[in-house]
Order: sequence, then structure tokens, then C-alpha cells
Amino acid sequence: MKAQDERLARAALSRLTEPGEPRLATHVAELGAVVVRDHLFADRDVNGVLSDVAARLSEIDPVRDLENADRLGIRFVIPGDDEWPTQVNDLDSAEPLHRRGGVPMGLWVKGPIRLDELAESIAVVGSRSATSYGAGVAGEIAATSASAGWCVVSGAAFGIDQAAHRGAAAVGGPTVAVLACGVDRAYPAAHKSMLDHLAVAGAVISEAPPGCSPSRLRFLARNRLIAALTRGTVIVEAAVRSGALNTANWADRLSRSLMGVPGPVTSASSQGVHQLLRSGTATLVTSGADVLELVGAAGDHLSEDPRGETRVRDALTLREQQVLDAVPVASGVSAGSLARTAGIGIAEVRVALSRLHRMGLVEDLSDRWRLAAAALA
Amino acid sequence: MKAQDERLARAALSRLTEPGEPRLATHVAELGAVVVRDHLFADRDVNGVLSDVAARLSEIDPVRDLENADRLGIRFVIPGDDEWPTQVNDLDSAEPLHRRGGVPMGLWVKGPIRLDELAESIAVVGSRSATSYGAGVAGEIAATSASAGWCVVSGAAFGIDQAAHRGAAAVGGPTVAVLACGVDRAYPAAHKSMLDHLAVAGAVISEAPPGCSPSRLRFLARNRLIAALTRGTVIVEAAVRSGALNTANWADRLSRSLMGVPGPVTSASSQGVHQLLRSGTATLVTSGADVLELVGAAGDHLSEDPRGETRVRDALTLREQQVLDAVPVASGVSAGSLARTAGIGIAEVRVALSRLHRMGLVEDLSDRWRLAAAALA
Repeated sequence: MKAQDERLARAALSRLTEPGEPRLATHVAELGAVVVRDHLFADRDVNGVLSDVAARLSEIDPVRDLENADRLGIRFVIPGDDEWPTQVNDLDSAEPLHRRGGVPMGLWVKGPIRLDELAESIAVVGSRSATSYGAGVAGEIAATSASAGWCVVSGAAFGIDQAAHRGAAAVGGPTVAVLACGVDRAYPAAHKSMLDHLAVAGAVISEAPPGCSPSRLRFLARNRLIAALTRGTVIVEAAVRSGALNTANWADRLSRSLMGVPGPVTSASSQGVHQLLRSGTATLVTSGADVLELVGAAGDHLSEDPRGETRVRDALTLREQQVLDAVPVASGVSAGSLARTAGIGIAEVRVALSRLHRMGLVEDLSDRWRLAAAALA
Repeated sequence: MKAQDERLARAALSRLTEPGEPRLATHVAELGAVVVRDHLFADRDVNGVLSDVAARLSEIDPVRDLENADRLGIRFVIPGDDEWPTQVNDLDSAEPLHRRGGVPMGLWVKGPIRLDELAESIAVVGSRSATSYGAGVAGEIAATSASAGWCVVSGAAFGIDQAAHRGAAAVGGPTVAVLACGVDRAYPAAHKSMLDHLAVAGAVISEAPPGCSPSRLRFLARNRLIAALTRGTVIVEAAVRSGALNTANWADRLSRSLMGVPGPVTSASSQGVHQLLRSGTATLVTSGADVLELVGAAGDHLSEDPRGETRVRDALTLREQQVLDAVPVASGVSAGSLARTAGIGIAEVRVALSRLHRMGLVEDLSDRWRLAAAALA
């Protein structure tokens, strides 16, 4: 019964206040949701008239709210539930940002993915006005991460967010959208079918109760949740002063891994990311493999540095390398001249030249030798 | 007389050995060029036959070499000369790399720029197979640096090097090419007219004496010189395992400022730079202004972080911001609903809405309010 009262109190407070109201979160963390709700409800003036907040609270019916949600396939997950993603509790000790902060009253969820599975999740977010380059990279990172079993979390917005959800969905991997409106709403409306799919194959999450519409404040509160839910945040493209940088700020504040994908310095969509990389706030990543290496447990995922193809040079003896090093690029020289330059006997030089010639590394211009194009590659 | 003998000894050793032979440089640093030359020349076997090195040394005529150079407008600058770029002496204590290292015997120079002016110089180098993006950025960085009075140093190669020289030359700024062949040679041949121009308006420099052709070893020796001569090196584009990364390695080894320009992660030409940025070896730069900030004396050049345009939001009162924050994005709500959400009296809400409407931040749908597109930008 106590647990049920806690759930009802949290559902009521979730409906009463804006998501991410930091003072309320602090009070609830200190006193518990039931005490805070009862205290707010008891607030009346000397004439016994309910305060504005108490009046609004009296109009809220959390039992009906939870029943309605249940009918829509929406569950309300609160701290203490088995499914609660405990990493979100890190918000309790983080400073507010843009007047948003604190642990949510609860999370409204639609979809089969359990929130505790988000312990292994990666946020892939960025500009709504993404370039095709950015969308391509976001899709690759999401697909690689999801294929490796990591849940890809994003905000269902146009541009990078959409590319991230799509990339994960296209490999049948787990992906979750965190919304600024109620999970029964489709915002943006153009993404309704994608959100419908996520609600069946992944999950759609919001701190705002069903029925709520999105607002700027709710986007800011939502961004903090994306950072808090995930092990790391990848910013794929972000203009200066964009919402993605707000998410980045939260990831940094919560000591999550913060990663940025570089792009052309001539692209406004990459400017914000370059600022994060330049200041050292974010680490540069170029692929899903890079991301997995940074967020994965040590040794789990090792991104192999791309190496030049193994060069023919590597197969040479030291002597052959010395001779090759002495062969000029432009006009040819005689074997005798090479012997003098390399400081090696003429016989040895001829042996080495013969092998280098067979390997296609030097060209023979009637006994004058010069480097072949292959040796310069 | 002693100074002249030192010059002749260095000219002879410069002709005798490959550029950047680290053992020779060490001997010369310890014993002086005259002693080393005399010692090498005295080397003969029990029958009095000159050693190979001594025989080659006996064929070298440094007096004639210097006279010939002078006729071609080429001077030989050695340590101790007024013009000597003393920062190059840092090579004395740096570990060799790919068997190249040490302070040069001297530098062969053609052109009006004095080498001591390179105390304020920046290397801009990169891939020979540059993209048009990379060439554009290299040109901008070179032009901005040269306009600010910094000499732009590069290697006269195709691609990024060419774009760097051009960018500096196009603003009439100082630029210097460091070659792997003699400064009387044009390599690549296609850049002959550019090199001719640099020899008149800037300078062309080489550690290899006139007449020498380029070789792989000489490119490696040349790269160390580019790093040593300059205050910082900017790598604009570099594939994995490219010559530019060799220069980067030297810049790092010599504690010069090492900078990298990011690019699309899908571009092979940027892979090497991304490795440098990811490992933290290089600092990300996006423009000439960024470069000047990093290499300039503290406070000399401050790169202003690009900021979003000042938003209309910044002009709002706190009250107006609170109301604006409560206005939904999608469907409109009544002023009364906004008053409840924002926790502000209805009269105040109406005043705020009226001003927000005049500023184009909210839309009025027959007394239901929602955010205007401008407020989301």
C-alpha cells in the first residue's frame, strides 16, 4: 500500500509540475513524494482557500491517470522499481542547468525495452538541420552500436536523431526515443510512424505525463534525461548554441563519456562539435567502433587504428632499404653513384637493385636507377 | 680565417653525407666541423689507401661549391651566422626518427627572407592528394597567418603544400619552401614557376646542397627541418601513414605546437589528422584565427568563439521568459492554462503574451497560444 501511495504521489507531482523542476526534486529527495504532495495539498490561506498549487493538485486524479496510461500501454516507472534506471539518480547531485535538474518524479514508458537495460546505452544526438554527411555518420554509429547490443537513445527529432533511430532499427537493434511531450503524442508529427514502431520494437520515454505537449523547457529537461540515461553521448553535428550542446553539457556535468564527430570546418553544422573537441570537453570519434571503444568496458571493444596497407618496404632487408633510400625520385643515377651515396659496396648494391627491381620499387633507365611510383605511394 | 674554414668544412660535410645523418651531427656538435672533416679525410688503411669516405671527401671542392652557389644566388647559412635560425638547434637534443636527426651542417638558401625571420613562422603541410576542401582550408590558414606577419613554411609539394604557399603569396605575405633536393632544382617540376617566385619573393631552403635530387631519405630529413624551423605545424589533411604525419611527429618531438584541421570522417585524407586529434597529440583548429591564437604570444591573437546570433530571447524579462517557456510548440493553449503552468497570475501572462506576440515569438490561434517558428530557431 505504501508503495502504491508513493506511485500515486509521484504521478500527481509529475502532472502538477514541469519536468525537471529542481526545487521539487530536492524536496522529494529529502522528504519523499507522499510528504511533499500532502504538504502542497494542505497549503491554504487564512480563510481556508486553497493555494493555487493546492487547487491544481486537487484537480489531478493520479489513479485515473495511471489507468488511462495503462489502457494506452503506457507504464509509469518510479525510483525503487526493478526496472528503474539507477544511473538517472546521478541527477540528484548535479547542479541545475537552465533552471532544469534533479531526478524525475518518474518516467512514462511505452514499449518492450526495460529501462534497466539502458545501463548499456549510447545517446546519438545532433542538429535537426543535419547534412547528409552527418546523417550518414549518425546512422553508421547507431547501427554499429546497436549491432553490438548497445541501445541507441535519441530524441526522435528531425536530422541526426532520426538518422540514429533509423540506423539502429535497420539492423534490428534496440533504440529508445526520449520525448519532450507525452509518449502518447507524436512530435514531430512527421515522425508518427517511426515513434509507433519504436513503441512496439523499442521504447518511447518521457518525464512529462501523457497528453503533455512539447515546450522549450521540456526540451531542456528532456536533454538532461538523455545524458543521464546513457553511458555516453555522441554529438554528430551541432551548430553553435544548439540543443545538442545542452545535452553535451549535461553529459559532461554527469561525468558521462562525451564524444564528438568532426566534420568540414566550413560546415556550420559542425561548428558546435568542433568547439567541444577543441576545448577538450568531448573526445573525437570517427565511427561506431571508436564509440564502442570509449564507452565499452576496458578491452571489450578495441578500435583498431586504421593503418596504411602493409608496405612492400616492410619486407626489405636493412641493406635493401638503405639502397632504396639512396635511389633518387626524379632523374636516374648509376649503381656506382648509389654505392657511394649509400656507403655500400657496388656488388651488394647490384644485388639489392636487382631485388628492388623485381619488386617494382625501382626503375631501370639503361643502367641508371630511379624510384618507381610504387615506392612513393 | 677560422670562420671561413668552419664554413668550408660544413659545406664539404653537407656534400659528403645525406641530410640529417644523426651520427655525423653528433660528432660535429661535439668536435666541430673542421676536426670531423680532417679526421675523416685522414682515414686510410695500412697501405695508405684512402678509405671510401676519405676518397669521396677528397673529390669534394667546397670552395668551388660555394662559388657556384653564389653565382646562382644561393647562400650557405651555418650555425653562428647572424641569420642562423637558432630554433633549429633544438634538433641537437631530439631523438632521431627513421634514422634522421641532428642539427644540419648548414642550410642552402635562395631568396630574400632571412632565416632568422622564421622565428615567427608556421608550417602548413599535408597530403599531396588533397581534396578541394583541404586545399581551401590550407589556403585560408596560410593567408590569415601571412597577413598577420607570420611566415608560412611548407614543402612545395602538390596538394596542401601548394595551397599553403599560394594562400600566403596571394596576400603578398611571407612564405618559404623547404625542399628535399637542392634549391637549384624544381621538384615537383610542375611547381617550377612557383618555386621561382618564392626564390624572388620569399625563400627556398634545403639541407641538401645544390644539384642534389630528392629521395625518400631526404624527404624524411626535410620534414624534420620544417618542424624545427617553425613555431607550430598545422596538418590540414593527411592519410594514415603519410609524410605529413612524419612532420607532425617531429613537431611533437620538438615540443612545437601541433595543430590539426578536422574533416569529414568519411574522407581518407582526414584519417591521419583525426588520429592525431583523437590521441590528443594535436589540437583541433578550424581557421587561421585558431592557429594564430595557439602559436601567438599570449593575448596577441584571440580567436573569438563563434556564438549564435544574439537571440531575441536575451532581451526578455524573466517574467516573459517564464511565460514563453510554458508556451507549447505544437497545439495552442489558452492564457489561463499558461498562467497555471507558469504559476503566474493571468493578468501578467496576458501582458507578457502581448509583448511576445509583438516580437514574433508566439502565435495567436484565436486566443490559443503556441510558439512561433522564430522562438525555436
